[in-house]
Amino acid sequence: MKVCLFSLYANSRETEVSEPVQALRWRDAPQGGYLQMIDQTRLPAVFEYLDYDSAETVAEGIRSMVVRGAPAIGVAAAYGVALEAMRLCHIVSDQDFSAALDKGFAKLAASRPTAVNLFWALNRMRACCNQHAGLAKPALAATLLAEAKVIHEEDIRINRTIGEKGAALLPDRARVLTHCNAGALATAGHGTALGVIRSAVLAGKTISVIADETRPFLQGARLTAWEMVQENIPVTLITDNMAGHMMARGEIDAVVVGTDRVAANGDVANKIGTYMVAVLAHRHQIPFYVACPLSTIDMTLASGDLIPIEERAHEEVTGYRDYQWAAHGVAVRNPSFDVTPAELVTAIITEKAVIYRPDAKGMTALFDQG
Amino acid sequence: MKVCLFSLYANSRETEVSEPVQALRWRDAPQGGYLQMIDQTRLPAVFEYLDYDSAETVAEGIRSMVVRGAPAIGVAAAYGVALEAMRLCHIVSDQDFSAALDKGFAKLAASRPTAVNLFWALNRMRACCNQHAGLAKPALAATLLAEAKVIHEEDIRINRTIGEKGAALLPDRARVLTHCNAGALATAGHGTALGVIRSAVLAGKTISVIADETRPFLQGARLTAWEMVQENIPVTLITDNMAGHMMARGEIDAVVVGTDRVAANGDVANKIGTYMVAVLAHRHQIPFYVACPLSTIDMTLASGDLIPIEERAHEEVTGYRDYQWAAHGVAVRNPSFDVTPAELVTAIITEKAVIYRPDAKGMTALFDQG
Repeated sequence: MKVCLFSLYANSRETEVSEPVQALRWRDAPQGGYLQMIDQTRLPAVFEYLDYDSAETVAEGIRSMVVRGAPAIGVAAAYGVALEAMRLCHIVSDQDFSAALDKGFAKLAASRPTAVNLFWALNRMRACCNQHAGLAKPALAATLLAEAKVIHEEDIRINRTIGEKGAALLPDRARVLTHCNAGALATAGHGTALGVIRSAVLAGKTISVIADETRPFLQGARLTAWEMVQENIPVTLITDNMAGHMMARGEIDAVVVGTDRVAANGDVANKIGTYMVAVLAHRHQIPFYVACPLSTIDMTLASGDLIPIEERAHEEVTGYRDYQWAAHGVAVRNPSFDVTPAELVTAIITEKAVIYRPDAKGMTALFDQG
Repeated sequence: MKVCLFSLYANSRETEVSEPVQALRWRDAPQGGYLQMIDQTRLPAVFEYLDYDSAETVAEGIRSMVVRGAPAIGVAAAYGVALEAMRLCHIVSDQDFSAALDKGFAKLAASRPTAVNLFWALNRMRACCNQHAGLAKPALAATLLAEAKVIHEEDIRINRTIGEKGAALLPDRARVLTHCNAGALATAGHGTALGVIRSAVLAGKTISVIADETRPFLQGARLTAWEMVQENIPVTLITDNMAGHMMARGEIDAVVVGTDRVAANGDVANKIGTYMVAVLAHRHQIPFYVACPLSTIDMTLASGDLIPIEERAHEEVTGYRDYQWAAHGVAVRNPSFDVTPAELVTAIITEKAVIYRPDAKGMTALFDQG
């Protein structure tokens, strides 16, 4: 079932969204409820919530990037497990329930490889399963749904805390470059990188945003620009290859990005192109900040070289959606992420602490301290 | 008049072009002849020559990027002057001819600001005018046409010489990144950066090309990919933000680009994004070569800071052609070029010499030596 709220391009003036952007929201219903996610592949032309009621459909929503952004993927996956448990209550025996739910876990785990929040959320849902293994199916499903809701609510709180810690790092009148979308749409709400910007604005600072368009999926042009326009935060769109020129001209004061996975040495995987921005920021002595929840940090991987990098479909690079412009016969590469070495990162901003000049020691200390 | 040759996307398999690509060609006709230029705004979807018969129409062809690439713009401008002289023969008096032709020069000079070949070609046509000021109108027009044809033919020869000098710098099996299109389409033929690649292939080397798509106008995806596919030179398309990732993975051995203007200290203006590629190549110790004719070098400007940088329409950044995807209300920047400081340039390859580690001394020596 699709619920079309409105088309933002129906009139030349964009329709306003009256409530804060929610990439995901839970809807109670007589049958037990379902998950709604904004179809981010169609924003900003169409603002539409799609409904999800199983692990398989949620996995497909993650794969097709209806929902994207590491924290949002984690929340979606948690709901995917709960939905699967609710669905299985009605169709499998007590005996088959656990194995059937395992298949749901596996489908979700196979949806996208890079963002570690997916696996973090699945591990947490697995732990919840194990802890309540003695419950009857409906009670276990209800418990899993409650856990998903806790993860959802926690993420919003965590983003606000990250935002406050990060806002302190931005000077008044800062012109802040961001790459991709690490906003409300990429999280349960508020955002990580855009959360830092939102919190700085809430704290009374004048901030303007420069948004890389972020080819090939155009998260900057479509999502970051849209979020900032909604909230009247000044935002200027550039193509990804303009950031260096603007830094050279002294038009960028700071960079803030999100991340899909941070390794134990502080290396940062994020949307393709982030590495180039980091190299340029380093050359121009512009601070390069990474904002993320602790759930994005993967202490099991010693360095960024070990982070799996997803390669996506060629059609994303040879055009955009149905508009294909590249010459026929050309080969294509489409790595969706790259790795920025820790040496280029000024600080990682988490809900627990700001880690300056991250390295293995600093990352370990982050988790060791009480 | 438009002459539609064929649509390359009419079939799923691309139609082959049987003769070398000619961005511009002169057509004799009973009335005196006209200029044809491939409409590069529509390649590769449509391969079409448009006809030009005046300074005003040629200026519009340059402004709208029907023709682009510094050397090709220079050749087009030279023909624009000749066409204007031919046109004016029939409609203005001997007395008004010179002033009317001056207006044609002015229209062409105002078409695009960055590529210095435009001004170089206009200066050369002006000198030809002055030298033959005593001639009757038709004879002067014929002389100007002959001069434009000489500039046209010279450019092809120059590109072949640049290609040979540059080819010697590429090792066998080199994987060569290029940005934008500095190919046959950007020149009178053969190309500067792609001329180096063509000449290396002609010399028996195995070369593969990585083409940056080059937002916002997509010269890499549309033009460079098309030229290379036509000649069976292996070419892989990436978005502009992937070059750093590929360098970090050791998948690029050299960078070769063209340029729109080189300052007297060796600073290089080229398509927006070139600077980012140069910074990354420097970090990864990958040679960064610039291929250009002497006519692209502007010894009147002490440094790249003085090169005027064109800003183009916002609609190029908020979408591509009629497909607009960015959020409404976003501000836009659209600088069409950036400046790469000489310190990042391994060598400038000209028809006269290869200038390693260019600086003011090396550039001066290039023009001083016999």
